[in-house]
Amino acid sequence: MTRIDGKRLIADLQQLAQFGKVGTGVNRVSFSSADIESRVWLRERLQAAGLDAAIDPVGNVRGLTAQATRAVIIGSHTDSVPMGGWLDGAMGVLYGLEIARSRIEAGRQSKLGVDVVSFQDEEGTYLPCLGSRSFCGDLSKADIAKPKSQSGESLPQALARAGYSGPAWRLDRTRHIAYLEAHIEQGPRLEATQNRIGVVTGIVGIRRFRITAKGQADHAGTTPISMRKDAVRPLFAFGHRVHTELPLMAGPDTVWNIGVMAVRPGAANVVPSEAELVVEFRDTSSELLDGIEARLLDWIRELDGEGAVRVEAHPIARISPTLMAEELETLIEAGAAEYRAPAMRMPSGAGHDAMVLGRYLPAGMLFIPSIGGRSHDIVEDTAEEDIILGCEVLAAVVERLETRLI
Amino acid sequence: MTRIDGKRLIADLQQLAQFGKVGTGVNRVSFSSADIESRVWLRERLQAAGLDAAIDPVGNVRGLTAQATRAVIIGSHTDSVPMGGWLDGAMGVLYGLEIARSRIEAGRQSKLGVDVVSFQDEEGTYLPCLGSRSFCGDLSKADIAKPKSQSGESLPQALARAGYSGPAWRLDRTRHIAYLEAHIEQGPRLEATQNRIGVVTGIVGIRRFRITAKGQADHAGTTPISMRKDAVRPLFAFGHRVHTELPLMAGPDTVWNIGVMAVRPGAANVVPSEAELVVEFRDTSSELLDGIEARLLDWIRELDGEGAVRVEAHPIARISPTLMAEELETLIEAGAAEYRAPAMRMPSGAGHDAMVLGRYLPAGMLFIPSIGGRSHDIVEDTAEEDIILGCEVLAAVVERLETRLI
Repeated sequence: MTRIDGKRLIADLQQLAQFGKVGTGVNRVSFSSADIESRVWLRERLQAAGLDAAIDPVGNVRGLTAQATRAVIIGSHTDSVPMGGWLDGAMGVLYGLEIARSRIEAGRQSKLGVDVVSFQDEEGTYLPCLGSRSFCGDLSKADIAKPKSQSGESLPQALARAGYSGPAWRLDRTRHIAYLEAHIEQGPRLEATQNRIGVVTGIVGIRRFRITAKGQADHAGTTPISMRKDAVRPLFAFGHRVHTELPLMAGPDTVWNIGVMAVRPGAANVVPSEAELVVEFRDTSSELLDGIEARLLDWIRELDGEGAVRVEAHPIARISPTLMAEELETLIEAGAAEYRAPAMRMPSGAGHDAMVLGRYLPAGMLFIPSIGGRSHDIVEDTAEEDIILGCEVLAAVVERLETRLI
Repeated sequence: MTRIDGKRLIADLQQLAQFGKVGTGVNRVSFSSADIESRVWLRERLQAAGLDAAIDPVGNVRGLTAQATRAVIIGSHTDSVPMGGWLDGAMGVLYGLEIARSRIEAGRQSKLGVDVVSFQDEEGTYLPCLGSRSFCGDLSKADIAKPKSQSGESLPQALARAGYSGPAWRLDRTRHIAYLEAHIEQGPRLEATQNRIGVVTGIVGIRRFRITAKGQADHAGTTPISMRKDAVRPLFAFGHRVHTELPLMAGPDTVWNIGVMAVRPGAANVVPSEAELVVEFRDTSSELLDGIEARLLDWIRELDGEGAVRVEAHPIARISPTLMAEELETLIEAGAAEYRAPAMRMPSGAGHDAMVLGRYLPAGMLFIPSIGGRSHDIVEDTAEEDIILGCEVLAAVVERLETRLI
């Protein structure tokens, strides 16, 4: 059994957290100087562990177990959201480093190597999952030419500024047998249920619609109710239905949200001429998503035209669910059991690089608890023993994968 | 029967509309140079009609029938909202001028005089109904000291800039027997029902509440529905109830509106931590307003605490209804009948100087149709024949009032 060095893992995490450090968190958006410097540090760290390390043209940092002809990829991303947490992404990459290093130290690198990776720009400062999409050959030149950061820099400009070169690192089906990504949960479920390991069943698909209503502005004192074209009224009916009727048709893990709403012109004494909201819903089942979408669009059709208000649904995002490999779920459960770690199966409600990799390669994800469920904030944190336990379980998964190769 | 001169009335209205003219409308907010100049013009016009004209210290322009010991006040306001219509307020003032002038010309000034007035700042650029409140002695020094315009000038600064002086014009109960105000409807009801005269039964009371909901921001993908504190959810329930249940308990003329709504932080993938809306409702019956208020507050109590979201109602405006004098309503109906003008009784959903005067003196209001119900916009307009008819009817009301004095 490969023993990972928990203290060394924590020390590496703390060192990486110095790049872009802000209080207890990090501000390390992709292509920032903190991000660029941290990639050099990571390459050196991978090299020092005995891996063949390099930074590829999009900024993916990878360290290959050169001795092996077959390898499992372990990684995630080291870029952060603005003012993000120290573990989000970084932890999954340094699990890879620690497991590869421990296996090399134990002389167990030849049968199944570990290829470690930090994929570029998972958080989408320029283009979400840029690095993993590049790795999977899922990016055209046009895809790369368009994106801009909020500060207005284009992705080609950022790439030229960073100056990465050499050959692109690509998925190699003769070498790569699986992708494993560990991540903080970014939600409250493990903590609330006192589980220590989350076995991710899939990454949810997301469908998002902008619902618009167009009526007519009128004086709210002088215009009788029966003569109004009140744009907000159908949206109250819609929002209320979403929150009261979706529970009746949703699966146990389905989530939905109305997080954006605007009413115009926005005066207490003026009947709204325009109103809009954004509704999204997520699940790992495409059938369930189809069913919910059909129902929501039915409601919109019923509301459209009532009271002479035009109500329309405009799709604005559509991301398919990605299921994790059933075999890897079983191995993660077995690894957790080996360490007597209470574990539960659960979907990932947020996107990850595994969402991209999972379309091309068996992919598995392991979650560890987030304190208070918090993430995308500098307060994000996880107990040290949970961080170490997660790495031990993932190392056990690699051992079990290796056994299967025999 | 006093014959008013319709052509002269229209010519005066067109001349007044030159002050602050913007396309077909006017930009003549109180204390603007256009407003200040128009008051000098009006004083001269009143003087020329044979009235004792002056501008008082708050800017009220009044022209008194000096020969009479008893008088009916006829007026409204000549200030406008920014980019407002040419008739809103101005018409009621020039009806007074035309009726007083016609009566003087006919030698009918002695038994019942007409005191004409343009009350200052009805639209509240600094303080709504400043002029009529001053006239009724309903203003303390503190009331005047506080208000500021949106450009930041205080009311005392504006008054000093205009430099009005002389004695304040005050309600005189030994002289004034009634207040009559004619106004465009500012709504669609007369036009829709093909009535030409609205007999105003009262000016609605307004109650306005800000409803706030406080929950917790969470990732909308990773936080299960059952663990959320979604601040917008109870407001959808509330808004839907307002629009579906108020019709069941409202009076025929009750109106309500939710014209303001905000959801924070306002991202599609973040569960709302805060949401708020502003709801208002209007009616001429205080009992009805009490009943609606009690029901709304019941709903808030039911919603408060559900899903760990705090929901609260904060009163932000409370204006009592003002009933018009029943006797004057009857006289306006009789005046309309005299001209075979189809008339209907209706509340005023907007505020007017008659709301202030009506608390101190029998007050009556007459509406004429607004084309398309539009107002507070430069497109506001009324057919010329309707403008003239309204003045004829109001002149008839004055004759009937005079008859009663015998």
